[in-house]
Amino acid sequence: MQIGRPEDRLQASLGEVTRLLETHRVLDTLIHRQEGSRRDLLENLQHRQNLAELHGRLRTLHPADLAFILETLPRDDRHLVWSQTPTELKGQVLVEVSEGVRRSLVEELPHATLVAALRVLDADDLAYLKDAVPDEVWHEASRSLDAGDQSFLRATVAYPEDSIGHLMSGEVADVRESGTLQEAMGDLRQRGPLPDHTDRLYVVDVRNVLRGAVSLADFLRHDPQAPIAGVMTTDIVTFKPDEPIDSAVKAFERYDLISAPVIDDRGKLVGRLSVDVVMDWVRAESDRRTLKRAGLSGDEDLFASVMDSARNRWPWLMVNLLTAFVASRVIGLFEHTIEQLVALATLMPIVASVGGNTGNQTVALVVRGLALDQIQLGNARYLVRKEVLVSLLNGVLWGLLVGFFALAIYRSASLGLVMASAVFLNLLVAALVGIAVPLALQRTGRDPVQGASVLLTFITDSMGFLLFLGLAQMFLL
Amino acid sequence: MQIGRPEDRLQASLGEVTRLLETHRVLDTLIHRQEGSRRDLLENLQHRQNLAELHGRLRTLHPADLAFILETLPRDDRHLVWSQTPTELKGQVLVEVSEGVRRSLVEELPHATLVAALRVLDADDLAYLKDAVPDEVWHEASRSLDAGDQSFLRATVAYPEDSIGHLMSGEVADVRESGTLQEAMGDLRQRGPLPDHTDRLYVVDVRNVLRGAVSLADFLRHDPQAPIAGVMTTDIVTFKPDEPIDSAVKAFERYDLISAPVIDDRGKLVGRLSVDVVMDWVRAESDRRTLKRAGLSGDEDLFASVMDSARNRWPWLMVNLLTAFVASRVIGLFEHTIEQLVALATLMPIVASVGGNTGNQTVALVVRGLALDQIQLGNARYLVRKEVLVSLLNGVLWGLLVGFFALAIYRSASLGLVMASAVFLNLLVAALVGIAVPLALQRTGRDPVQGASVLLTFITDSMGFLLFLGLAQMFLL
Repeated sequence: MQIGRPEDRLQASLGEVTRLLETHRVLDTLIHRQEGSRRDLLENLQHRQNLAELHGRLRTLHPADLAFILETLPRDDRHLVWSQTPTELKGQVLVEVSEGVRRSLVEELPHATLVAALRVLDADDLAYLKDAVPDEVWHEASRSLDAGDQSFLRATVAYPEDSIGHLMSGEVADVRESGTLQEAMGDLRQRGPLPDHTDRLYVVDVRNVLRGAVSLADFLRHDPQAPIAGVMTTDIVTFKPDEPIDSAVKAFERYDLISAPVIDDRGKLVGRLSVDVVMDWVRAESDRRTLKRAGLSGDEDLFASVMDSARNRWPWLMVNLLTAFVASRVIGLFEHTIEQLVALATLMPIVASVGGNTGNQTVALVVRGLALDQIQLGNARYLVRKEVLVSLLNGVLWGLLVGFFALAIYRSASLGLVMASAVFLNLLVAALVGIAVPLALQRTGRDPVQGASVLLTFITDSMGFLLFLGLAQMFLL
Repeated sequence: MQIGRPEDRLQASLGEVTRLLETHRVLDTLIHRQEGSRRDLLENLQHRQNLAELHGRLRTLHPADLAFILETLPRDDRHLVWSQTPTELKGQVLVEVSEGVRRSLVEELPHATLVAALRVLDADDLAYLKDAVPDEVWHEASRSLDAGDQSFLRATVAYPEDSIGHLMSGEVADVRESGTLQEAMGDLRQRGPLPDHTDRLYVVDVRNVLRGAVSLADFLRHDPQAPIAGVMTTDIVTFKPDEPIDSAVKAFERYDLISAPVIDDRGKLVGRLSVDVVMDWVRAESDRRTLKRAGLSGDEDLFASVMDSARNRWPWLMVNLLTAFVASRVIGLFEHTIEQLVALATLMPIVASVGGNTGNQTVALVVRGLALDQIQLGNARYLVRKEVLVSLLNGVLWGLLVGFFALAIYRSASLGLVMASAVFLNLLVAALVGIAVPLALQRTGRDPVQGASVLLTFITDSMGFLLFLGLAQMFLL
């Protein structure tokens, strides 16, 4: 019996694969030290034994586990494992693996192998991989589907990548409104196994218009002679194919859905969205956010080549460098002031830093509020008022603290006062900008996660320097 | 028929509630301008009509929608809506609502009402609310459960909050190994409706040891006379109650699970984990991350009072201020140097800023790698080498760029060279620290998300100032 903890199994598989790779490397080194026919003999032996063992081990793995192992391995090992992965598993692995790694795996395969790998996939998975493989490969692979699946495929890939239409499945277990549970069951049996994640059957009329749903549990509970129309529920959450997947994520979470029907404008059943797709999206989105905040594009592969990684990071660093230059020029305006009172150079980063940090706290709250749809036109004013009040309170508190610090070190009450005022004012700026920036990014159709922090830090830095050095120039010199 | 888009429905409900609240406020103002008996009459009228309408509207809402509405409303409106929420819904709303808002809702209810609200909940939900309500309220509410549920409840609340044992459900549809599908179905029918999210029934032996599982679809597909033991699958992913929920999240995502059995050390079935609980956790975790990165504790309520919000943000600001002070003291060491060449004050924030930003990119990659278990002892060395190479490449590139900038503005080749070297070295520091800090936090059992960024910025700031001003002192003066 194979009842087991998933983490243990996965780590064991990874350990085994790593061990086989290690053996491969050791043998390789040994062989290359040998010469002539002895080398050939050994090489042959190694290839036959070690690689066969690796190949055999990989064949037994779940595609998701294989994807995980490929993601974890450095480039060379990944290449070796991928070359030993059975072709019939390769397609499913490409579906499971993260974007950055997928690119590197696709690049390694000749077109013919890629077509063979994709040919075993169903229409949903093929739709998902549309943009990941060369067009001609994709078209050739999709020709092996039957006519119905091909037309579903054409329809689904036409929707944007983050839309429900693109992510929905065409495999829907539907039953007719007329008839009894028993008749529906007989009908279903003929059609073969139910699609994965089928928790309920969708009830349609003769024109394929959605009328309701019957849960599988209802089939077990009710008399087989009961009419479908009497057992079905009509209170169903439905989606349209052109809606963004985000709205489905919220509904699946809020109403604890397993699957939901997708209908067109005339109410006809066109597909089905299931919780596994939604959950994958949530996880991927959460990872993307981690990277986006640092200005990294898409799914940067942890083991991408040095050149690829460096290039991936340049656009953001360029933005950062430009903003740092501008902030630096703000200081440059006051070089004469600093010359007269060099203590200013020491204290000015504090004003910028405190502003940046309080502002980022506001940004985090607003970004989460936007993600959860909690911020509306009606309560935005309330939110601004609250954040301003918090910043006034914090401004007095931290301003005084920082002011006393300056006073204590430089024995100058007026320097302390200038420092306190600058912190107070910069916290106010930070609160207003911390709300305004993510809201403005959202309004203009941009992602509030990406860029909000950099824009905010730019403003709080520049304003921090400007306020502090400006006040110093006015009142200290 | 109620087939409808969930977003539309929810926004419509929110709009209606907001409209009723608005009417309430307008009437309130009008009434307070009146005097004497006329005022009483109007007050009576308003209370009867408007609040009754609000109450009626709230009664028809899904608890999750009500929770959303309460989260979106400012304090006063939230108070009014909560007071008008029917008691029988209040318990379910408390389960659905986010942590920060839950606290404010619980505080408003007298103990007797709270007990009444909780009494309608099942054992899973009561376990979930254990730490959210006063102990005596919780104990009184749990007394209304039957004996079996009470003992499940005692067991489950003893596990840590983020463990599978704490989050599992006691409602498990299990069938005996011996017997046919038909017998099992008859047995199930007697026990009433199946628990939510039941995609398969767990098969146990006489000692309640898990032996396998039969999917509901299998019941429909197979001959009712087939023996359970012949139909069931034995390849099941199982969990132990003391495992952290994180390991379940990964397994649910990887293997597309709907539910999974929880077994004790002797293999006995003790509970069930379902995808809705796992998905709630993923979403909550993703939101928590957004806040944690800014040093905000738990679920800060967007509409918390000014004082609560301010206090929530102080610990982190204190840490930030301390690190800023230290960085400022590093500059203080070189006041004499700056006095001689004031341009240094203008350029030094650039060195610090470029280091902080590249370092944060590394942190983001490592944090995601850790979250996905992609970083192991074996590949950590590879990762360090790669990040160091990227930083060397970037160091040369950005160092030269920044150096030329300094040269162009201040017409000093040696200043440019010092600037370039400082940027180059600080990028190297940033890469090493960017890997080391999240790994060290993880090793010591801390959360790599919280604190990594602040620690990194602290080091890149201080080192940036130290390297730049130190090099300047050595080579320019």
